[in-house]
Amino acid sequence: MRIETLSDGEITRQASGRLGVETRGQGFIEITDAAARWVAGTGIRHGLVTIFCRHTSASLLIQENADPDVRRDLLTALDRLAPRNVGYIHSTEGPDDMPAHIRTVLSGVSLSIPVVEGRMTLGAWQGIYLAEHRDRPHRRELIFHLTGA
Amino acid sequence: MRIETLSDGEITRQASGRLGVETRGQGFIEITDAAARWVAGTGIRHGLVTIFCRHTSASLLIQENADPDVRRDLLTALDRLAPRNVGYIHSTEGPDDMPAHIRTVLSGVSLSIPVVEGRMTLGAWQGIYLAEHRDRPHRRELIFHLTGA
Amino acid sequence: MRIETLSDGEITRQASGRLGVETRGQGFIEITDAAARWVAGTGIRHGLVTIFCRHTSASLLIQENADPDVRRDLLTALDRLAPRNVGYIHSTEGPDDMPAHIRTVLSGVSLSIPVVEGRMTLGAWQGIYLAEHRDRPHRRELIFHLTGA
Repeated sequence: MRIETLSDGEITRQASGRLGVETRGQGFIEITDAAARWVAGTGIRHGLVTIFCRHTSASLLIQENADPDVRRDLLTALDRLAPRNVGYIHSTEGPDDMPAHIRTVLSGVSLSIPVVEGRMTLGAWQGIYLAEHRDRPHRRELIFHLTGA
Repeated sequence: MRIETLSDGEITRQASGRLGVETRGQGFIEITDAAARWVAGTGIRHGLVTIFCRHTSASLLIQENADPDVRRDLLTALDRLAPRNVGYIHSTEGPDDMPAHIRTVLSGVSLSIPVVEGRMTLGAWQGIYLAEHRDRPHRRELIFHLTGA
Repeated sequence: MRIETLSDGEITRQASGRLGVETRGQGFIEITDAAARWVAGTGIRHGLVTIFCRHTSASLLIQENADPDVRRDLLTALDRLAPRNVGYIHSTEGPDDMPAHIRTVLSGVSLSIPVVEGRMTLGAWQGIYLAEHRDRPHRRELIFHLTGA
């Protein structure tokens, strides 16, 4: 088992960016294209892009972007893993609030993806999604960091 | 959907650090202030901070730092997701050991947060927590890495 | 609570690499040694290594590398968290497919580990694993990024 080196060179630059996303209640919003355009626009050819979600009831994840049924089943699965109305102490913000916090912990708020020859190294079926876990629409904010050369 | 660039410049420096944390059994210990002070002390204004937890039964997560009931409900949720006494093979280290490993996988051991204008870009309600998943007190160690300029 | 600085200096280099892994159905394949050899081979002494899994039904995680029973119990736990045959809409790729997507979301596809004095700062019991969540063997691909000096 041996790792094949793809590139080896200097690191000289970094950029950061912000993306506001208007959500429409529980569900997934794909941000892959926006991320790819921003990475390409910086001119950085090799490096690492990191995405960070600034919320405790919305998260970031990578999943299949082919069949939308995968995302529907994923919502059902998250609902089963972090159900409503199981006697939460923190309930003043509504029955969807504490499940949203738990789903955020389970799916995470930061992701890092290597960039090779100007493109994120996502697999053929991978899409990057902001996951909204609250019932009502929210304005969410993601921060991007890219370093490389 | 377009990412707005916040900063674009050179990358010149990196620093690493270590934080020892004494835990008192299952629960969350906030490390946000310690991380913020260390980032500020390096003088790095733009960059990326990464935190890594060197354990298999303690993890790192970001959650609401306002209402402590959120963390109490989160402990209950983790207990439901990874319960004790469901016939684990690995049980010699006690009934809390295998659930601790599972909770660590679910919540994760590495986090990366962009730094803009000298501050981590955490959202208004986000706190960074070391999560202890064992019953007894432990000395845990986190490694920090910061790169930028 | 104060973070002790371990190193502070310039950042000059980056490298990327690729690792193909042949899996044999559900289970964990340790990649710690391959990662350690690659990091050592670059000559980078201080920095950050990031590993990224290019799949939606295989993931990356860090767990105990001492007792193999921990991994057996972990498989059982993932099976309980994301069971088969609970009425998934997306079922054309087999009963193991949707559970594999869910397990990938729960365990994650990117990991970042600081490097200090030429070594990843893994804890004494930590091993890095590719987790295959499908029943049949697959060829999986991981991308590595290392930056530092």
